[in-house]
Amino acid sequence: MISFKNDYSEGAHENIINLLVKSNLEQVDGYGEDKYSSLAKEKIKKIIKNDNVDIHFISGGTQANLTVISSILRPYESVIAAKTGHICVHETGAIEATGHKINEIETENGKLYPEIILPVVEAHSDEHMVKPKLVFISNSTEIGTVYTKEELVNLSEFCKNNDLYLYLDGARLGSALTSEGNDLLLSDLANLADVFYIGGTKNGALLGEAIVIINNELKENFRFNLKQKGALLAKGRLIAIQFVELFTNDLFFKLATHANLMAKIISDEIKELGFEFLTDSKSNQIFPILPNKLINKLEKDYNFYIWQKINNDTSAIRLVTSWATKELNVDRFIEDIKKYME
Amino acid sequence: MISFKNDYSEGAHENIINLLVKSNLEQVDGYGEDKYSSLAKEKIKKIIKNDNVDIHFISGGTQANLTVISSILRPYESVIAAKTGHICVHETGAIEATGHKINEIETENGKLYPEIILPVVEAHSDEHMVKPKLVFISNSTEIGTVYTKEELVNLSEFCKNNDLYLYLDGARLGSALTSEGNDLLLSDLANLADVFYIGGTKNGALLGEAIVIINNELKENFRFNLKQKGALLAKGRLIAIQFVELFTNDLFFKLATHANLMAKIISDEIKELGFEFLTDSKSNQIFPILPNKLINKLEKDYNFYIWQKINNDTSAIRLVTSWATKELNVDRFIEDIKKYME
Amino acid sequence: MISFKNDYSEGAHENIINLLVKSNLEQVDGYGEDKYSSLAKEKIKKIIKNDNVDIHFISGGTQANLTVISSILRPYESVIAAKTGHICVHETGAIEATGHKINEIETENGKLYPEIILPVVEAHSDEHMVKPKLVFISNSTEIGTVYTKEELVNLSEFCKNNDLYLYLDGARLGSALTSEGNDLLLSDLANLADVFYIGGTKNGALLGEAIVIINNELKENFRFNLKQKGALLAKGRLIAIQFVELFTNDLFFKLATHANLMAKIISDEIKELGFEFLTDSKSNQIFPILPNKLINKLEKDYNFYIWQKINNDTSAIRLVTSWATKELNVDRFIEDIKKYME
Amino acid sequence: MISFKNDYSEGAHENIINLLVKSNLEQVDGYGEDKYSSLAKEKIKKIIKNDNVDIHFISGGTQANLTVISSILRPYESVIAAKTGHICVHETGAIEATGHKINEIETENGKLYPEIILPVVEAHSDEHMVKPKLVFISNSTEIGTVYTKEELVNLSEFCKNNDLYLYLDGARLGSALTSEGNDLLLSDLANLADVFYIGGTKNGALLGEAIVIINNELKENFRFNLKQKGALLAKGRLIAIQFVELFTNDLFFKLATHANLMAKIISDEIKELGFEFLTDSKSNQIFPILPNKLINKLEKDYNFYIWQKINNDTSAIRLVTSWATKELNVDRFIEDIKKYME
Repeated sequence: MISFKNDYSEGAHENIINLLVKSNLEQVDGYGEDKYSSLAKEKIKKIIKNDNVDIHFISGGTQANLTVISSILRPYESVIAAKTGHICVHETGAIEATGHKINEIETENGKLYPEIILPVVEAHSDEHMVKPKLVFISNSTEIGTVYTKEELVNLSEFCKNNDLYLYLDGARLGSALTSEGNDLLLSDLANLADVFYIGGTKNGALLGEAIVIINNELKENFRFNLKQKGALLAKGRLIAIQFVELFTNDLFFKLATHANLMAKIISDEIKELGFEFLTDSKSNQIFPILPNKLINKLEKDYNFYIWQKINNDTSAIRLVTSWATKELNVDRFIEDIKKYME
Repeated sequence: MISFKNDYSEGAHENIINLLVKSNLEQVDGYGEDKYSSLAKEKIKKIIKNDNVDIHFISGGTQANLTVISSILRPYESVIAAKTGHICVHETGAIEATGHKINEIETENGKLYPEIILPVVEAHSDEHMVKPKLVFISNSTEIGTVYTKEELVNLSEFCKNNDLYLYLDGARLGSALTSEGNDLLLSDLANLADVFYIGGTKNGALLGEAIVIINNELKENFRFNLKQKGALLAKGRLIAIQFVELFTNDLFFKLATHANLMAKIISDEIKELGFEFLTDSKSNQIFPILPNKLINKLEKDYNFYIWQKINNDTSAIRLVTSWATKELNVDRFIEDIKKYME
Repeated sequence: MISFKNDYSEGAHENIINLLVKSNLEQVDGYGEDKYSSLAKEKIKKIIKNDNVDIHFISGGTQANLTVISSILRPYESVIAAKTGHICVHETGAIEATGHKINEIETENGKLYPEIILPVVEAHSDEHMVKPKLVFISNSTEIGTVYTKEELVNLSEFCKNNDLYLYLDGARLGSALTSEGNDLLLSDLANLADVFYIGGTKNGALLGEAIVIINNELKENFRFNLKQKGALLAKGRLIAIQFVELFTNDLFFKLATHANLMAKIISDEIKELGFEFLTDSKSNQIFPILPNKLINKLEKDYNFYIWQKINNDTSAIRLVTSWATKELNVDRFIEDIKKYME
Repeated sequence: MISFKNDYSEGAHENIINLLVKSNLEQVDGYGEDKYSSLAKEKIKKIIKNDNVDIHFISGGTQANLTVISSILRPYESVIAAKTGHICVHETGAIEATGHKINEIETENGKLYPEIILPVVEAHSDEHMVKPKLVFISNSTEIGTVYTKEELVNLSEFCKNNDLYLYLDGARLGSALTSEGNDLLLSDLANLADVFYIGGTKNGALLGEAIVIINNELKENFRFNLKQKGALLAKGRLIAIQFVELFTNDLFFKLATHANLMAKIISDEIKELGFEFLTDSKSNQIFPILPNKLINKLEKDYNFYIWQKINNDTSAIRLVTSWATKELNVDRFIEDIKKYME
């Protein structure tokens, strides 16, 4: 079986493994107060061109989202998110479990725009309703779409004007930043968001996300929140080492570029064969709409999710490529599609 | 600097590192549904001689405690714990953050006994007070003491008779089970506790604790709780691999035995020199009471915590040894004490 | 100014006031363990023809909803509700503040049906998502519509078959049960719902709702939840007295019948005048769509909410009548509408 | 049976009942935006000689405590309270249910002093522990003792110097302020506390406490918290009317003075008879230590709590007097004691 099910089926890039092995017996301080944590933070600060940020490493995306959001909001404040957002669907109510409502917005492409946020803000006018205070977005989104720089600039400005914080979930930020046509830089985010996180788990790390807090108001005592949510690893070095290597010699971008390229090859071929897609994705998640008969045949040798029934004969499937996807397997997959279509 | 500050200063035992490296590029399912997770669970079930348990891997102790406890209790139910318990002091209110009060009990040695729990249960008699429902203990305790089998049997029976669950925090369970004079087996716990966890982080793993749920009532839907608390790692294999190796060829017990031995060497020498200890510890945490002058000198070359002021001239310090503590460093430490005393 | 803004602008029906005055200096037990509480419970059990229920009095609807819902659900379980539901919009995130997500469903008329609930249940298939466990409905709904007996029977059956609890918010239950064409009895609810509450505040009481727990599984230790949420009034007699009188000589139904009649008079006249309504309401809340010019004139002498902009020239307003609405004022209002239309 | 069990056995003072009756059919706005709420706030501002405060009415003490405390603290912050404090014992974990730990301090007399708070503050030094942020006190305390002005001035200063908020639970504030030897004025509190509440329920009201927020930082959006916790009564006038009358012609102080006097009469006589007391109370709760034989006899005609076993022969009982306690019953009680002693 070959898996296109997700981007976390393998371990980590060998550079990361190598540093893990090499540093293994060094004695360092616990809870992220070690030299690798310092080094990883420096590297990130350099690449985002901003020294005045706080960086914290955390083991996964749900943990990042719940810790960041609950640290920001007062009890009656809410989050605004696209209905397809990870926090709305796939985190088992993690945000609500910290006490906060999510105002979910139906979107066309998984992205939020000022014009669809404004009515939600305006509708929440008094103390009988929650007070929206934070806008949650993902880039790339949960359905593979990517924000342009202009879209983010507009969103950022809108948030500032409406007393809203902007938080970006970057579980697949690498893929977004290296996607075809992307004009956004990692350093732009440090000007546009109040907080964001850089995803490691889905881009070649064993585990780990790097939370970057830009807005000074949101920095204070953040480690208390980490500890309370069980997110402060005793051996903090473990996550730090992932980011030391991801941000050495542009590994982070190289791995994401590879993932995108693998997706593009599949995507281009499937288009060529005349099939449609559920969403317009330039990132490492693509959603081709295929005949069920074809899908059934592919399932024998490939792992992937059937995402959505389209009609009685066709369904959209989700294919995810990663830093570790072999071009060989991509080629085989395409050949099999062609074979099964004959 | 040589560190006796804690038992998580180094990475992981080489066997673990080796399996990590070896398995790195295998494609396996995410979220703990991989073959290493299955294998690690089998190994644990075998050693505890009980097939009818649910096992879940989680990244750290605070996360284990908050996820287990919040999954068990109804909103108005509380936990009973020793005042020195990790959940009372060193988890930044993680349990309360999930909505539950801890009834803290002053103890002599960090251990709970039926006779000191009973008055707390009896005092909570109506709906104006919380309803104690779960007893939290640690073995070894936060101050280095260890439960005898008889003590645990009594406690377990008391809990059953009083409609209380018994939960054991095993962050340092390895050290407890291999401590001098210990008569408790890992398999005993599967008869005595309703839930317990086996600590990896402080006994040679990069990260990870294995939650073992024995009581059938507490098993249902536990993975929903894991996901909601941000505790379900995408690459679940990472923690599973730690336990596969810890429970291969008794590595878990060998590492803990080493840690205890290193502590005993220091302990015996310090006793020989005529000093007292704060607690009677046979485990890998010891608390000698030393002259401040001596402590100041030791601090130049050694890392450790000053635990408690005893009087103007002396303090108790905490020394922690680990699977990775080198006998060489232990010897040097003892020699330095002797040297500074001259 | 005459108010059609809500049904809680006045104090209480004189019978209630009289009993309050009469009983004022009697010494009775606190926290709802007094003779008036017992009496009120007996009266309610009699009218719902079910002795095997637990009844608790509580000061308001939001408090009832948050206390009931948080007492029922495990941390990862969610509530299903119509998007117009009170808990979704007008309770400042009270349910989420207790840790639970609400799965909001878009409806045509504020009511839930099996066919629109089923897809939500089916979509929540694994531990990455919350587990829907309770269906929340209101009768009459927040937009004035009323459930038929058949609709509730179907919903109840659906819930039982899908392992869901059914909870009915009866803030305006009196109005529903006395609305034109209603075929539901208060006693039916004791067969159809797992829990419901009978609203006093909006039907002639100074304050108070009566929570009726039918399902035995949900009864245990409910008073602990009441106390924890700050809902156990020291002078529980105060609310009990409201219900003693509401359920003496059918006062509850008489008051609601009056409110409905007042709404119907206005409604019929407005229809006669050729205006449309936003919803098809037979209860004491009606939503006529009127020209903005007319609305502006009416606002000089009458209090009411402008509910929704329809187009540039017309809006829907909300008119609420109550047990205390004077027919005189209703007549004057209609005359004024006619006058302003000339 | 005559009750000395608590101070909420009767309804309300007749002045309150009279205004309730008189105002009953007036149409006023809901949710505390009515003229009685405004009037009550004015009266309170006048008596505390401070116009720059926010006042909110709420139905009970537990609700006041949980709403105030959860509105102030960030997730990782804790409350410091005496172990005998109402929030520690008799609120079913209401504070923890909002996510916050209480650091409980053992006291001699139910009162907190800087010297016993300081060690707790100092012990909480890093992010592995909660951060104490608010000091909770009650006046009079749960065991009848009363703070002197000097004690409160010291405590207030200490809190300011240590970045702690001071919150005073005034469930029995009337009794404290009119107790023998008291030198504290209601207006002093507006200089010493950050928030306090004035208790109505236990001093002649049907229900209701008045929360007074002095510190500007703590005022913002407080009504959102009220609504979210289910504490915003639709008919807010109901509580407001209680305070309008309590603060007309010094009724609040007169009622409390009566309660204290009744307690003093009993207290003096019991002292005269040679019995000791558990605490040194000048307020309306007294704790005489009596022979069990005597207690058994008294229980036939009087309701009161047996508070604490002292030895095999004697127990402390709690006697509570109130605004409604009849001197006749006090005299009868004393006579019965004397009679039973013969």
